[in-house]
Formats: sequence, C-alpha cells, structure tokens
Amino acid sequence: MTEDALVIFTPSGKRGRFARGTPVLTAARQLGVDLDSVCGGRGICSKCQITPGYGEFPKHGVTVAADALSDWNAVEDRYKRIRGLIDGRRLGCQARVMGDVVIDVPPESQVHKQVIRKSATERHIAMDPATRTVYVEVDEPDMHEPTGDLERLQRALAGAGIEAAEADLSVLRRLQPVLRRGEWKVTVVLNRGNHDTAHRILDIFPGFHEGGLYGLAVDLGSTTIAAHLCDLTDGRVLASSGLMNPQIRFGEDLMSRVSYAMMNPGGDVEMTRVVREAVDHLAKSVAEEAGIDPAQIYEMAIVFNPVMHHLFLGIDPVELGQAPFALAVAQSLALDARDLGLGSLNHNARVYVLPCIAGHVGADCAAVALAEEPQKSQDMVLIVDVGTNAELLCGSAARVLACSSPTGPAFEGAQISSGQRAAPGAIERIEIDPATKEPRFRIIGVEQWSDEPGFAEAAQQTGISGICGSGIIEAVAEMRMAGLVDASGLVGGPEQTGTARCEPHGRTFSYLIHDGTAAGGPRISVTQGDIRAIQLAKSALYAGARLLMDELGIDRVDRVVLAGAFGAHISAKHAMVLGMIPDVPLNKVFSAGNAAGTGARIALLNRGARDEVERVVHDIHKVETAIEPRFQEHFVNANAIPHAVDAFPELAKVLRLPEVSFNTGGSGGEGGRRRRRG
Amino acid sequence: MTEDALVIFTPSGKRGRFARGTPVLTAARQLGVDLDSVCGGRGICSKCQITPGYGEFPKHGVTVAADALSDWNAVEDRYKRIRGLIDGRRLGCQARVMGDVVIDVPPESQVHKQVIRKSATERHIAMDPATRTVYVEVDEPDMHEPTGDLERLQRALAGAGIEAAEADLSVLRRLQPVLRRGEWKVTVVLNRGNHDTAHRILDIFPGFHEGGLYGLAVDLGSTTIAAHLCDLTDGRVLASSGLMNPQIRFGEDLMSRVSYAMMNPGGDVEMTRVVREAVDHLAKSVAEEAGIDPAQIYEMAIVFNPVMHHLFLGIDPVELGQAPFALAVAQSLALDARDLGLGSLNHNARVYVLPCIAGHVGADCAAVALAEEPQKSQDMVLIVDVGTNAELLCGSAARVLACSSPTGPAFEGAQISSGQRAAPGAIERIEIDPATKEPRFRIIGVEQWSDEPGFAEAAQQTGISGICGSGIIEAVAEMRMAGLVDASGLVGGPEQTGTARCEPHGRTFSYLIHDGTAAGGPRISVTQGDIRAIQLAKSALYAGARLLMDELGIDRVDRVVLAGAFGAHISAKHAMVLGMIPDVPLNKVFSAGNAAGTGARIALLNRGARDEVERVVHDIHKVETAIEPRFQEHFVNANAIPHAVDAFPELAKVLRLPEVSFNTGGSGGEGGRRRRRG
Repeated sequence: MTEDALVIFTPSGKRGRFARGTPVLTAARQLGVDLDSVCGGRGICSKCQITPGYGEFPKHGVTVAADALSDWNAVEDRYKRIRGLIDGRRLGCQARVMGDVVIDVPPESQVHKQVIRKSATERHIAMDPATRTVYVEVDEPDMHEPTGDLERLQRALAGAGIEAAEADLSVLRRLQPVLRRGEWKVTVVLNRGNHDTAHRILDIFPGFHEGGLYGLAVDLGSTTIAAHLCDLTDGRVLASSGLMNPQIRFGEDLMSRVSYAMMNPGGDVEMTRVVREAVDHLAKSVAEEAGIDPAQIYEMAIVFNPVMHHLFLGIDPVELGQAPFALAVAQSLALDARDLGLGSLNHNARVYVLPCIAGHVGADCAAVALAEEPQKSQDMVLIVDVGTNAELLCGSAARVLACSSPTGPAFEGAQISSGQRAAPGAIERIEIDPATKEPRFRIIGVEQWSDEPGFAEAAQQTGISGICGSGIIEAVAEMRMAGLVDASGLVGGPEQTGTARCEPHGRTFSYLIHDGTAAGGPRISVTQGDIRAIQLAKSALYAGARLLMDELGIDRVDRVVLAGAFGAHISAKHAMVLGMIPDVPLNKVFSAGNAAGTGARIALLNRGARDEVERVVHDIHKVETAIEPRFQEHFVNANAIPHAVDAFPELAKVLRLPEVSFNTGGSGGEGGRRRRRG
Repeated sequence: MTEDALVIFTPSGKRGRFARGTPVLTAARQLGVDLDSVCGGRGICSKCQITPGYGEFPKHGVTVAADALSDWNAVEDRYKRIRGLIDGRRLGCQARVMGDVVIDVPPESQVHKQVIRKSATERHIAMDPATRTVYVEVDEPDMHEPTGDLERLQRALAGAGIEAAEADLSVLRRLQPVLRRGEWKVTVVLNRGNHDTAHRILDIFPGFHEGGLYGLAVDLGSTTIAAHLCDLTDGRVLASSGLMNPQIRFGEDLMSRVSYAMMNPGGDVEMTRVVREAVDHLAKSVAEEAGIDPAQIYEMAIVFNPVMHHLFLGIDPVELGQAPFALAVAQSLALDARDLGLGSLNHNARVYVLPCIAGHVGADCAAVALAEEPQKSQDMVLIVDVGTNAELLCGSAARVLACSSPTGPAFEGAQISSGQRAAPGAIERIEIDPATKEPRFRIIGVEQWSDEPGFAEAAQQTGISGICGSGIIEAVAEMRMAGLVDASGLVGGPEQTGTARCEPHGRTFSYLIHDGTAAGGPRISVTQGDIRAIQLAKSALYAGARLLMDELGIDRVDRVVLAGAFGAHISAKHAMVLGMIPDVPLNKVFSAGNAAGTGARIALLNRGARDEVERVVHDIHKVETAIEPRFQEHFVNANAIPHAVDAFPELAKVLRLPEVSFNTGGSGGEGGRRRRRG
C-alpha cells in the first residue's frame, strides 16, 4: 500500500501515479486534464465535480476498490445539503486519491465544455469566452510590507494563472470597500481582448459570486439589427431580438447613406448617433425580455458591413463610396462600450469588433466564414449572405474568394410595393395554381394556409399586412412557374394570362394576391416594378457568384449555402427559378440561418475563434465587383428569369417552366418603355 | 579604392568599414551610433546633422581626404537655403561615405541628448520622452491588396521600429482625411506608457510637422499645486506656475480631509472635482503664459502624497486614515487625461502617475528619490521634502529608508498669524540684531533689504503683506538667536527682552516685525501661537529623521538635502537653530529646490526613469511613523529650540545660543496653560 496510486481520467484517457492523499483536482491539474475550478479548491464553486468509477475496468486494466477515494467529507456534505449534488458525484477538490481509481469528468465540469443551444441557428460552440469570472482570496494589507490593494489582488490573480490584470479608475474606486466587505475574498470579472493584450478587471464582487455574466452578439445590418443575449458562463441564448436600422431615413441602401454623409456636413455624425442609440436600445430590450439587468452585459461582439462598421465607430464612410474603397481600419478592435455611447451596458463593458475583409466585404462576411467555415470545406461551396448588400464566399479548403454584390433592399421587402419586414401578418409563403392562377399563402404568426379551415379566424389577430422578403421571392417565382410572368420578367395582362388577378397598373400589369379592402385592410399585389426590383437584385447576386466562379476557374459548385434570416425561409426551388443562385441539385441547397449573427456569437463565446477569424480574413482573397467589367457583363446577362435555361440543367430535371412571352413589341406598355430606356 | 572605407564616429569612438556610397546615417545605424532621424532619411527633419572632420587624425590613425564624403547635394542645398545649416555641417542621410572619414555627432543630433535647462532647479535630463513624433510615408491603398489605412500606417511605423501602434476612435476618425491631405506622408504623435505596453497614436498631422509637442510635470501638494510646462522635443521648461489647492476649504491638512470624506457622504467626490478642476486650470494658465494652445499638451506626469493621489484619482482616501494605511493602488498608472476631467489638454493626452511607496509615503517621495538618487549615494544622506507632510528619505547605496512625518502646514505659512504663501509682498528673509532686537527683512519681489535705500519706494508696488513659510522659520530662529525666545519656545515680555517689540498678546507675548497700519497695511508679528505651531512642525520633522537614523543604526548623517520650494529659501543655520534637522556641518546642508517637481519632470522627459522609479520604490524600505512608539518619544523630546544643545556639536562650533528662560513657572501665562493641556 505504499506504492503510488494509479489515477485514470475519462474521457481524456490521461493517467498518472500519485501519492495517496493527493486531491483529485491536484492530480487532474498535474496531468493537464480539463477539470474546471474557479474557487481554487475551497469547495465553494462546485465546478470540479467528478464521478468516480468502482469495480473492474478491464479496458484500463484496473480494479477500483470501494475505498479508492477518501471518505465523503463535511464540505461535500454541506455543499450537497445546500446546493445539491447528483448521486455518485464528488467534489474533485475534496476527494483524495487513496488507491487505483478511474475518474470521469462530466461535460459540465470541463472548462471547454461543448454546449448545445437552441436559437435560430442551433450550434455547437466550444466555450472559452473572453469575459469570465474568477474567485480569489487576497492577502490582507500589512503595514510592514506596504503594497496597494490592487497589487495584492494582482498577486492573487497571478496565483490563478492570470498575469498583469489591469483595473481602470472605476474598479480602483470600488476596490477597497469590496475587498473589505468580502473579507478579502472576491469574485473578479475579467476580460481579455483581442491579440495578446493583458486581462482587464471589468468588475469585482465581494465573496463568491455566481452568474450574472452576460454577453451580446450583434449583427448590425443596413436594414435590420439583430441581437442575441448569451449567458457567458454556459453559452445559452437567453433572448434574441431585432430592430429596424433607424439610419434607413438617411437612405435605403449603403451608397445612399454614403452620399448623405458626403452631401450633408455632420450627416455621418447624425447617422452614428442614431445607430448607436438603436443598438443600446436593443441591448436594453433583450435584457428586459430575459429579465436581467443590462448592466450585467459585460461584452458585446458585433459584425456589420464596412459602411455600417465605419458609421457605428464614428468614422466618415466617404472613402468607401469611391475607388479604391479604402477602409480606415480592417483589423479587429476591442473598445470600451461607453466610448460607443452604449450606456445601458455595464460601465466597463467591452466591445469586440470583428475584422473586415475589404472595403466592400465586411466583418459580417468574416463572421459568416467563421460560422460556415468554407476554408475547411472538402467540396466547392458557395455561401450567399443576403442582406441589403449580398456577401458571397466561394471556394474550398484550397482557396476561398469573397465579394460583395449590391443587391439593394428588395430581398428584405423594401422598395417593394406591398413589401414589409418579416413580422406577424406578412405573407411569407405563397403558391399559385398553374391551372386556376389562384394563390394560396401563409402569413407569419398563423399556422394554416389561407385556403385551410381556421385561417380567417386566426388571421384576424394579426391582419394580412404585406409581403416580406422571402414572400416576394416566392411570389415572383410562383408567378413565373404559373405562366403569369415571362422569361424577360414581364407580367401578362388578364387576356394573356386568363385571370382577372392580372390587373392593369399604369401601363403595366400587377398580380393581385389578396384584397383586404372590404375589411379595411390593404390590397396586396406584385407589380411590374416589384418584379424589376427583384430582377435587379437577383442579377447582382448571380453576377457576384459567377464572378467568383470565374476567378476560381469553375463552372459549377457542389453546394450552395443560403445565409441570412431570409435564407432560412425561401425554398431552393424558388431561388433557382428566379436564377438567384447557380444551378446545383436542389438537395444541395442549404440554409444556414443568420450565419453572421452566429459568427458574432462564436466570437463572443470563444476567444480562440477571434484568432481564427483574423487568420481567415487574412487568407480570403477579395474580388472587387465594382471595378470588374465581367461583373457588369454577368449582371446584364442575368436579367431573365431564369436568365438562360441551359445554365440550369439541374433545375430542368425537376421543373419545366412555361414558355410564355408578353412582350408586345410595340411602343406601349412596359416592354416598349424598357427598350427606350436601354 | 575598391576597399571599404573606414568610418569613425565621435564622441562615441564607434568605428566600422562600409562600402563606398553608404549614407552616413546608415553607417551610424549599423554601428549603433546615437544619431537622430525622424523623417527616415529624406532630408526633411535635419535631425541627423553631422560634422565631418578632414585632415590628419593621429589619434584614430587615419587621414581624411577632402573627398571623403560625397558632394554637397541639392537636398542639403535646399535645406540650408530654407532653414539654415551651420557651416561645416552635413545631413547624415544625404552625405555618403566615399573614403576613410571621422564624423562627429553634435549633441543636438543625438537622440538621447543632454539638455541643460534653467528653472527653479537646473538639471541635466537625458531626453527619451514617452511622447514623441515620428514622420512616416504610408503606402497608398490598393484595391487588389485590400488593407485598412490603419494597417498601412502601422506597417510604415513598424518600418521605423515602432511595432503594434494602437489608435483610438478619435484618431481613427481623422486618419483617412489626414493621410490624403498629407499625400500619404504624415507625422504621428506616439506615446508609450509605463511597463512594456504598446505605442499609442495620440495624434496625426498631414506631412512633416515639427514642434507643438508639450508636456506638463505637476507636483500636486496638499496646500499648493506646481506645474512646469516642458517642450517634449528638447526638454526646455517654457513656463512654471503654481496655484493653491482648492481642497484647503475642506481641511488644512491631509487627515482633516480624510475626516471630511468620512463625515460627509460624497465629500471625496467633491474634493476630487475641485482638485481636478484646479489642475486643468493650471494647465491652461501655464499654456497661456507660454503662448501655446493647451491642446498641444500631450502628456502629464504627476506626483502627490497618497491622500492627494487617491483624491485626484477619485478613490475614497478613508483607508489611508487608519491602520494599516492600505493604498488602493501603489504602482504607477498610465491613464487618459479626459477620464480625469482634464479637458484643456489634448483630447488623447495621457497622464503618467508615479508610483507610491506606501500608505504615508507617496509618489512625491518617489519623485524626490528619482531626482536626488539617495539609492546611488556613496555617503549617508538625509533628504527632507517639506510640505504639509514632510517626506524623509535616509540612507545610501546600501539601503534607503523612507517615512512621512505629519508636520502640518506651518512651514508653508498656514496656521501662522501673519502667514501667507510665497508671493510678492511676503517677508521671506529676516535678521534680528542681537543688541538692539530690531529686525530687518526682505520681501519677495523687492531686491533691497528693508533698511536699505530704495526699499520703501520699491515696496510700495507690492505692499508688505505677511510672512511666508521660509520667513517664519528664519523669524523664529532669529528670535531664538537674539534672545527673544528661550529654549522652551516661550517669547519674552518687553521687560525680559528689553524691547517694546515684544508686546503682550493675550496672556503671552508677540514680537512685532512690521507695523504697516499707518499706510493701511497689516501689523506683522510672530505670536506665541506661531512659535508653538513651528515647534510642533519641527519636532515632527526631526522625530522622523531620528526614527530613520535609529532604523539604520546611525547617529549622524554625512549631509542633509532640503527639498521643496521651501528648502530653496531657508538657510542651513536657521534650520539647525530650530532643530528641524539633525546636526551636520553647515556646509553639508544643500538645497534641492522642488525635487518632487523635478522628479515628475524627469519621468515626463525620460521613459527609462519610469522603470527606474519602479525599481526604487520597490527597494526603498518604508518606516511607519504612526505606529512607531519611538516616533512619539523623539517627537516629545524634540520640542526645545534646539531640543538638546549637546545633540548639535556642529552648530555649537559656529554659534552660541543665548541662555535665556522666560518660563514664569506660575499658573498664568502660556507656560502654565501648556502644562494644563499636557
């Protein structure tokens, strides 16, 4: 019995011999086993829970006796009584090795635990947040060895492996009373920014303080702002919320906002002010939704396109409006939230800004790469993030290219006659019967389709208010499939189509989806103008994709990933009918949900991902659509719906589009007008 | 002529062989010769001026031919024409080595130049400021290799040896227009804080920008605040100014301010506000005096005692008022001026706070050590910095001890009946004739003594308003030497002293120095209360010195250095007569002027000194007077003037003090009252 005991940890398989009496936590640390502890082995935090195995372990070649660990002790007893402990579990800091033993570290006791989380996008994210808490005991002051309280706190933190932690004035101000109230035991909120910067002390609490540590992942788009509130201790998403970008009043799309800044002295300052206010407001509202104090939000990770990036940081975006589209700064930034006017967050909250790829390809695209990892893909993938600008990533592990394409806001339901944001009452799905030309649809907030029993009653709650982005795409594609729109994008008249729903609208025709006027609601139609807006948007998107494929020297991709909230709601078939995306088998089109938001969440919850995204941004090759003549060529050629049937062999396998043509060739009507314009 | 040329630099003596055609600047850099250049060798900054020597140099064993350097070129010509260049000088970046040559680097071309500067304290300070300018040329943006403007600026700075320079939002905001206005040539103001932190970009100017880079060294005392405005490019002091500390209204001495904070919720916040305002105001007024814009002040180095340190930083000083006198933070700090409410300075100005030694021994004492270097002294030195608290340093290269002694504000002219701060009209010198008991004096702002021709006329300008700190010390010492005051500190009456100037004042006597009432001015006297205040102060000072000597196990020191503005104005003899300082030969008492302010100036102008002061603070051993029973003992024993004649053999060699005694021993008079109090 004098021989050292063999200790085997699972699932890591790490093993070693230790003197009898060695605490399990000590053994784990010496072997480099991933076993958490924030209280430094005082039986307070319970992070180091372990499950000893007893009996025969032929796989490991050991037999574990019933007395392989020291007896259950008073600390464990007290912990179990007050906070509860699963049967069979021990505290690793209390249980001591007395004989050969096999010890399992359950997932929740691992520092880098894998957490599965529900949200718009369900993801595994390895937890290693830049902001975390550490509990330490600090030496009391000694007149004969005079040092400051901060120096003694730093010494205690160094003992926990955290070197040179810095404190700003607001923490210094509270340091002395908190240390004394906690009787020299304190819990410190630490943040470590990007690159290899020192730890910062963001907050300090007397004694052992658990929970109350939240972070915000923000995707700040030109049209909408989305935020996820995350628990920084376990990665759970507590609440998600969105808001319209209030800058819309200065211009629908990015270039019109850049113009606004150029034409109006101080215009950029005003746009900065309103968007910061909106983000701060959004932080408050998700906190309220989750029932937490927004001052418990200690960090925010944010992604945006370059123009929003500059406007949010308070940098005039004028250079982004003209060649060579120079960013003021591309690298990731770690900033104080208060310097960005985010007064609702904790006073010392930090903001991590993901890096931009180039003047037209922003941190949002970098975040998509972080979430979807084209740089690790074995097959050739095209990732399309549709917003007011579309960001495209194309490639594989060998090489990834990126570009941005000016789709405009049509895909988001803006500049569409009956368009609206995705909210209850908006038409999000639509089908048109090819025989009767009658539509049926679904609205957000109601389960039933419009022709199913119970729809009318259910729809009374929300009303039927308009068409959202995914709805308009389905509507146009369905109109094309039903022969109401020809390949050139012209809407047919009632005689040509055989339905009175195709109504005259000026010198062109509209297709009526729903007439709610009898009940005081709107008339919801798809106009010729709406179709033209969608054609411009989809041509831009397709041209961007083709340009990247040209650069890669490929004719086809193996799969297409549709990112963006929008991508989650349209079907592959409809996207393909429109000619939005290159031809692939329909089962090779995937939705990634809000991949930019997911990327922001990954950066919030995993510090290593911040290094990863820097590498990815560095390695991705940028293609500038604005100066590439082939982009214009692809754009013009992609106007038809779909632009060239022979470019879509996979689509042709499942679908034959009606061969109709509504071009009168005369001087009247939209067709004539178009020729005059051209 | 194909052999490499021998280049010898003086005064360094460094030598090496270089290919013909090598620029002198390049040769200097390769040899590690201290030759300045901020424009990177473009002939713009002229920092690299050198003086070639021609002819025989037997000492170096070379003969320098007339064509040893390349011909005078157009860049040099243009520089000389526009800005001037001393005859015989060349620009090191333009002149190329063509043969063996001896090259002198004049002091002004050395980076670490020795600058001699006039001010209250004339000092050599090696220039290596934490804040400096660098001129760089930045690559233009390239659409095909997209990077941010900041990244390209960082790359240019890295080429100049400055790695990872960070820019805050305010610089990022101005980066793009400035780069374009300067046509990709910019001058950057850089700061590197304490420890090994990254460079920060504080400001950026288009093109080559010279001068306009100032720093402020501040000594923030309990009673007065002193500031020196320095040119950060050459170290010159452009202006010095002082101000009363507005906190005086919350309490004359430190402990009364700590009490104010304890008794009045929010009292510390109010004291913080007023002192920050005062420092900001002082910055503005020295800038105005020097005719510069205060926004050109990019850095401030500040020293203070621990209570002022805490109050300035916004930390409640309550812990400093009770054992164990724990500082919230002792280490040096580098902060943003705007976080300290110093709005007059540059928006990005930095504040370097020198480290404190202990709870009663502050950054001011650390600064004194930096300036006077007891830690390098070969003999045993006692350094006394007299303020509202006196800081004492005693020791030698072997070991240095420090303590603080609560002298109170009497030495600064406060709590003295006719006391005032050192300003025009204040009596600063005084002599009393031992025979006639008549005084003669000098006032600040007037050359003549009061009994010399022209004094009355000259004094009309300023008036005769009171006695400043050095004046009261001389007055009391002179009264003792003239037999007007006995060893116990009692003032004699007119009968005892034989002069009507010793007037009754309550139940004690005062000595009248000047009666200005006829001209509407004040009566200026030294009262018994004044003498008691000086006795308390000097006893505290002497007791502190004795305590340090006890700890060092020594009976005498080799020299005494009197620091503080005050120390510059009192004579060794008077200080010794009072028994303020231990006995040494009178020619071994030196004045160091405002050594704390000098230390702040050194830290402002030399980054290496910041590391030095950290080391010094770490090595100095702190003695806590407040808990040391021997301090009380020394204090009580030191009440007499001087407290024990046999303790002053050196003084006795030059001076025999009159043996008088005015103690009536009865129940009336001050002597009786004192006994009742005791």
